Amino acid sequence: MSIDVLQEKIRKTKNPSMVGLDPSLETVPPHLIQAAIAKNGHTLEALAEAYETFCAQLLRAFKGIVPAVKVQSACFDALGAPGVAAMQRVLQQAQKLGYYVVLDSMRGDVGVIAALCAQSLFGQVQAGEETFQPYACDGVTLNGYLGGDSIAPFLPYCEKGKKNLFILVKTSNRTSTEVQDLLSGGRLVHTAMADLVNRWGAGMHGKCGYCQVAAVVGATYPNILKTLRSKYPGMFFLVPGYGAQGGTAKGVAGAFDRFGHGAVVSASRSIIAAWKKTETDGRDYVEQAIAAAEKMKKDLAKYTTVM
Amino acid sequence: MSIDVLQEKIRKTKNPSMVGLDPSLETVPPHLIQAAIAKNGHTLEALAEAYETFCAQLLRAFKGIVPAVKVQSACFDALGAPGVAAMQRVLQQAQKLGYYVVLDSMRGDVGVIAALCAQSLFGQVQAGEETFQPYACDGVTLNGYLGGDSIAPFLPYCEKGKKNLFILVKTSNRTSTEVQDLLSGGRLVHTAMADLVNRWGAGMHGKCGYCQVAAVVGATYPNILKTLRSKYPGMFFLVPGYGAQGGTAKGVAGAFDRFGHGAVVSASRSIIAAWKKTETDGRDYVEQAIAAAEKMKKDLAKYTTVM
Repeated sequence: MSIDVLQEKIRKTKNPSMVGLDPSLETVPPHLIQAAIAKNGHTLEALAEAYETFCAQLLRAFKGIVPAVKVQSACFDALGAPGVAAMQRVLQQAQKLGYYVVLDSMRGDVGVIAALCAQSLFGQVQAGEETFQPYACDGVTLNGYLGGDSIAPFLPYCEKGKKNLFILVKTSNRTSTEVQDLLSGGRLVHTAMADLVNRWGAGMHGKCGYCQVAAVVGATYPNILKTLRSKYPGMFFLVPGYGAQGGTAKGVAGAFDRFGHGAVVSASRSIIAAWKKTETDGRDYVEQAIAAAEKMKKDLAKYTTVM
Repeated sequence: MSIDVLQEKIRKTKNPSMVGLDPSLETVPPHLIQAAIAKNGHTLEALAEAYETFCAQLLRAFKGIVPAVKVQSACFDALGAPGVAAMQRVLQQAQKLGYYVVLDSMRGDVGVIAALCAQSLFGQVQAGEETFQPYACDGVTLNGYLGGDSIAPFLPYCEKGKKNLFILVKTSNRTSTEVQDLLSGGRLVHTAMADLVNRWGAGMHGKCGYCQVAAVVGATYPNILKTLRSKYPGMFFLVPGYGAQGGTAKGVAGAFDRFGHGAVVSASRSIIAAWKKTETDGRDYVEQAIAAAEKMKKDLAKYTTVM
């Protein structure tokens, strides 16, 4: 899928949001963990099964409401191989159900290793006479601190309009100022990174007008969103940090163009762990998550109309 | 293990080098792949088995010669769950054989996710009544672009002198200039990053005088190594990019103090894929790798004497 498909899915659902699937002992309700432990013992396999069940139920529930999901690699990696196996199935299921799927792995490495990553994420891994796609995804988050070498191997997949990159420009966390806001000449480091993202994606614009190489800009920095929106009319933004991290619908409105296009706002804990804010034991986590996703959609719509 | 243990292992072997285990279809000899395919079919499991055999043989071979190894997460991740399972066993074996073990994963994420990473890499993952250590390692490479939030959850493990961080300051690749060499005030971005590394590790110095929070600085930038060495007398350097990437023994000499302490130079392909430079079919890859590791040791010793 390409940035056009993401934009079209957003237009169809009238919902410029992306749910982050971040399963952990903090977000998955206890009854799912207990059931998996009863079946698999006190093992990492049990946690992996509980995480997978949790994500699978949520994926079924969000269908038709949410256009895109973001799968947090670190949550599954934390369980070792059983976690990764579960993540591979969650990614597959998400694609099968028709979501636009981002794998959130925030890596960055030198050329030869980046090429391996690009191949396993976007291409095919060759094992003898067979080929495999270990990670079914449409886009991936990358850290551009290493510069163009670390991005280049991914670009041919973007150029063909098949895959997208979401490169960290200005992250939603408080200390993103420490490196990303250093003043460099007339620019801040994150503006320099945005310039690079713009250069790396040059000529790779979809029919929707947005570039296949996109930027991550935190919901917690509304002014930066506005500035970058007006400076880069063709740059698509993935905007994390709405909800649990403090980003607001008003704050993210500046990320969109006048048609409500050009950005997608992601939220993880505030949606998938909405059950924790209720008096329940989490058995109604699906209903609570749907309610939270619909509330987020309405909230965003107060300031942004997707045409 | 701590930075003291790494420094002591280097002192004992008189070898300030670290071998990077980067198994891939480029570095693993064909006969290992073919044997694993004959046994497991044309599957990712077969590749994972071949990668594991390759690393296991090399780990046995380097014992007593090389003090430390660096395991490249991306190479194993590329195979999905079977690859990760193989990596977990390679890490365990490396620790069992007495190596100082770095997991090279170059991630960086916001606080709550960084905390999960820190726990799975340095701590214990709780599954019901049991605890697990999915990844046996002594140190990990991290990308500090997100600032202190992304580093903080790892610091308690460093403070206790049990684990180490290797934070990307100036990477060995050509385009590291694009972001890392931006001029910011009187500093370059990578110098600002080094200042942060210095601050994050404040008060966490081992008995050897070096800090548990270390920096990655590429062998391909000799002048930067010299400058940083003199500016931060307590900062330990992991120096990648020797060999295949073009770093030389003369160039890395500036990373060490006058006792030959304070740095470790890593090489991957030039050691583990040394068989590719010969006329053989790779069946002698272990002998070729030992020869290359010993050649590297001698080469480094021309300019750096470890006391």
